[in-house]
Amino acid sequence: MEITRQTDYAIRALVHLAGLAPNTRVSTSTISEAEKIPLPFLTKVISHLVKAGLVVTNRGMGGGVSMARPPDEITLLDIIEAVEGPVLLNRCLLREGLCEMEPECGAHAAWEAIQNRLIADLRSVNLSQLADYRKVAKQAK
Amino acid sequence: MEITRQTDYAIRALVHLAGLAPNTRVSTSTISEAEKIPLPFLTKVISHLVKAGLVVTNRGMGGGVSMARPPDEITLLDIIEAVEGPVLLNRCLLREGLCEMEPECGAHAAWEAIQNRLIADLRSVNLSQLADYRKVAKQAK
Repeated sequence: MEITRQTDYAIRALVHLAGLAPNTRVSTSTISEAEKIPLPFLTKVISHLVKAGLVVTNRGMGGGVSMARPPDEITLLDIIEAVEGPVLLNRCLLREGLCEMEPECGAHAAWEAIQNRLIADLRSVNLSQLADYRKVAKQAK
Repeated sequence: MEITRQTDYAIRALVHLAGLAPNTRVSTSTISEAEKIPLPFLTKVISHLVKAGLVVTNRGMGGGVSMARPPDEITLLDIIEAVEGPVLLNRCLLREGLCEMEPECGAHAAWEAIQNRLIADLRSVNLSQLADYRKVAKQAK
């Protein structure tokens, strides 16, 4: 039930960007070093985030990665979905009728309820909050 | 973030047993057929459940699998943990200090809170409830 390492790296990279002044562009090598993300992993992660419209990349002189949206409009759920696709606790929740046992299943409704709570929880945390938590944590260090 | 297929099979097998009269012994082939679980998978699943003390197996004539505890004392969390080990949304939650970024991490506290809610939700559903849901679902079919 774990998020993947790629998702964890995506969160780190985005918390890094969200902690900077709006529209700041950062090179992937700066993010890689600061967040201890191996560069090949980071490149892959960034491409997911670009596709999902969470960051933009700018080529050439003064290029780099920057946020595509304000950090308070990006939730933990958005980041997970950008890298892993829809949050699913059980495959049977992908769509109705996928599982042949569904009509007589005892657990389907329970899974649905628990998944809905988890999704709401992941949606309740935004990137701006995470960047603020980090500032406090760094100051306390 | 999905449970494994093995865990899903474990839940099916246990809901099957929980729906029978207390102390009923059932052969693995009966469970396999009724719950559409391939026998080699089921054997593996049952061995996890025996190890976790959720079911017992009895050899020989009149043998088979039976519940080791009353169904209302077995939660969805118990079943997941029996097959997959501890529920972890992010590897960093396994133990304090595992992740080198932890002292300045913006997301650690959020992960911890969301995981605690998920665990509480999984603990709030017991096998007796799942067996009851199934009875109702079967009647409605």
